[in-house]
Amino acid sequence: MSLKKKPVTGMKDILPKEMEIRNYVMEMIRRVYANYGFTCVETPCVEHIENLCSKQGGENEKLIFKILKRGEKLKIDTAKEETDLADLGLRYDLTVPLTRFYSNNANELSAPFKALQMGNVWRADRPQRGRYRQFMQCDIDILGDPGIMAEIELVLATTTLLGRLDFHGFSIRINDRRLLKAMAMYSGFPAEKYDTVFIILDKMDKIGIEGVRQELLEEGFHADQVDTYLSLFEQLEHSADGVKECQKILSSVLDAAVCEELSSIIEIVEKSKTADFRMVFDPTLVRGMSYYTGPIFEISMDEYGGSVGGGGRYDEMIGKFTGNAVSACGFSIGFERIVMLLLERGYEVPKTGEKKAWLIEKNMPLEKMAELMEQAQKAREEGAQINICVMKKNKKFQKDLLISQGYEKIEEFFA
Amino acid sequence: MSLKKKPVTGMKDILPKEMEIRNYVMEMIRRVYANYGFTCVETPCVEHIENLCSKQGGENEKLIFKILKRGEKLKIDTAKEETDLADLGLRYDLTVPLTRFYSNNANELSAPFKALQMGNVWRADRPQRGRYRQFMQCDIDILGDPGIMAEIELVLATTTLLGRLDFHGFSIRINDRRLLKAMAMYSGFPAEKYDTVFIILDKMDKIGIEGVRQELLEEGFHADQVDTYLSLFEQLEHSADGVKECQKILSSVLDAAVCEELSSIIEIVEKSKTADFRMVFDPTLVRGMSYYTGPIFEISMDEYGGSVGGGGRYDEMIGKFTGNAVSACGFSIGFERIVMLLLERGYEVPKTGEKKAWLIEKNMPLEKMAELMEQAQKAREEGAQINICVMKKNKKFQKDLLISQGYEKIEEFFA
Repeated sequence: MSLKKKPVTGMKDILPKEMEIRNYVMEMIRRVYANYGFTCVETPCVEHIENLCSKQGGENEKLIFKILKRGEKLKIDTAKEETDLADLGLRYDLTVPLTRFYSNNANELSAPFKALQMGNVWRADRPQRGRYRQFMQCDIDILGDPGIMAEIELVLATTTLLGRLDFHGFSIRINDRRLLKAMAMYSGFPAEKYDTVFIILDKMDKIGIEGVRQELLEEGFHADQVDTYLSLFEQLEHSADGVKECQKILSSVLDAAVCEELSSIIEIVEKSKTADFRMVFDPTLVRGMSYYTGPIFEISMDEYGGSVGGGGRYDEMIGKFTGNAVSACGFSIGFERIVMLLLERGYEVPKTGEKKAWLIEKNMPLEKMAELMEQAQKAREEGAQINICVMKKNKKFQKDLLISQGYEKIEEFFA
Repeated sequence: MSLKKKPVTGMKDILPKEMEIRNYVMEMIRRVYANYGFTCVETPCVEHIENLCSKQGGENEKLIFKILKRGEKLKIDTAKEETDLADLGLRYDLTVPLTRFYSNNANELSAPFKALQMGNVWRADRPQRGRYRQFMQCDIDILGDPGIMAEIELVLATTTLLGRLDFHGFSIRINDRRLLKAMAMYSGFPAEKYDTVFIILDKMDKIGIEGVRQELLEEGFHADQVDTYLSLFEQLEHSADGVKECQKILSSVLDAAVCEELSSIIEIVEKSKTADFRMVFDPTLVRGMSYYTGPIFEISMDEYGGSVGGGGRYDEMIGKFTGNAVSACGFSIGFERIVMLLLERGYEVPKTGEKKAWLIEKNMPLEKMAELMEQAQKAREEGAQINICVMKKNKKFQKDLLISQGYEKIEEFFA
């Protein structure tokens, strides 16, 4: 009987070195967000298939790992399609489960409810380098606060976390879905075409403004509409002042409160931030999911091409599911990317004490072994980290490995 | 479109109060075992179905959540049985995945390899109170140490952990599979019936010695064999001395080294222990899994009827899978039971600092909000925990909830 040694396609074993960084990052996340009043919650990894296929998950719904019905419920003979065979699935994000969690437990939760979730999600994506079919997601959400204090707290907490993990000089790009729509309306695009416009606009950082112009024209939009639209992006500063300019230009199509909120978020965060980053008003920021209703944001780092996290306000989603409208705003941190960046940088987790290894020769007499164990126990009580190992034949190799794992002191004990 | 609000059958949402304890226990587990030189590893929750159905999982193999094949691999029309439909499954324990992990990564791991795994496992058990279909397992294993130092370290580390979590007066029951077999052989039971004998013996704490006698007789064993067998249990002390008595009685059927090892484990642990517990030689301890080859142990607590963890040596399992024999010894901690006991006891996680809540009235002017945020940021930098919340209409309810969550100081800020 032989074992398949490799993990299943697209998933990975995690070795001690990476685990050390992952645990450290998770612990730091819990600690920093606790300081901001967030509490941890958890939902099962397995969800009702109906909840997962509720059209809130977008493209992810095509990537669900579905779980076979069990016992008498499974009728292979008469099954025609997947829905006959599967009643459960592995969650592909933490947003759908949070919505279910909130509607199931709202009575027992504080209001506003500030939730921190860390957990694995699964997507049957085409496997590719650096992208896995099981990965850790880390979501923080504030449910029940309709005002910009939620956005400010989310950005401050998240940037403080990144600062503690030694990230510097990054940006939080921010925009607002309502502003995005107003710009499209101002330019004369038809409302039913907004999403098409936004999908093209979203490519700005890859294909540049001329690329966006060309694609918009190819899509059949009028040249003057496209010109009006793109000229908006050329004249705007990437600061709260830029938002205020916007407000003036778009006054006929946009409630002034939207821009006031956005510029206030930028200004208050800039004033009270403690980490080394800047707020960037980015009117080209789209964020994929259609459920966003207000401010949206994304973390950009020069050392990494893409985003290492993002989020926004989604005031209508919970109500759609549960019938009771609840305002909501959330941030999803790119946990796996942060770990990858730290690994690439050779990040060392701060030491908590001296690491000692004791190599004990085989067949150590019992009295002597008892003495050594007692000694080790005492030292550990005082906080020392002592790794007691049986001495291996290839002692050099054993010691080299221990040194590479940060053991500074290796003592040998002979029978 | 409405959501199923309850978690899937047999699984549960975990609320902040329980999460706080779970996170604290997990952090304590990591810290204590790190002090003993254990390093964390992780395997995917999803495994090859062939590995899960390899006959090492015993009864658990009947409880697998199987995952539907995806894309073209899924052929519903021609499928005859479950194996045609599923290629993956959710792991039901951490032992099978550890074996795969070790054979996949042995070259990069230190020797001996001291592994700590914490992760969810799934079993499609009949749902019942306190027993869930998704639960956290916590396994610690030492691979590549054939001697009793492994057993001693596992017991010392685990009991130190329990002591730190404020458990007192518990027992570690210990036995040896080889001793178990020798007793059966000494009594004249046929070798092919040992497992039947052990299954009955295992009920000793429930049905008592007379119950065991009756069941053995009903099974058709000779009365004199049964008498010989049961008299062994009546005369033995539950200490290292008891093991030494055993050695004398069983000298014709058992290598003296087995009892020497067992009594040495008991004596050395008793001498070097730091927590408040005792080692109990329990010749009736069986442990279900047939893969154990040497010492076996279990944690017993008076406050909880059953076992809250256990383990043993399983020197042959990895070799069976991989062809290369590797000695192995492991302990599985009953994480969910420990959390349940702490919850029932009203355990409070030690405080890490003052928890303050600031209730901010809606429509707070922006300048004042900016000031407050700045103030909060400074206080947090100095380590304070400040939960900023929008003030709710039902302020009394909001404050009561915050107080129940341990917020001692609640300040209110009006526009």
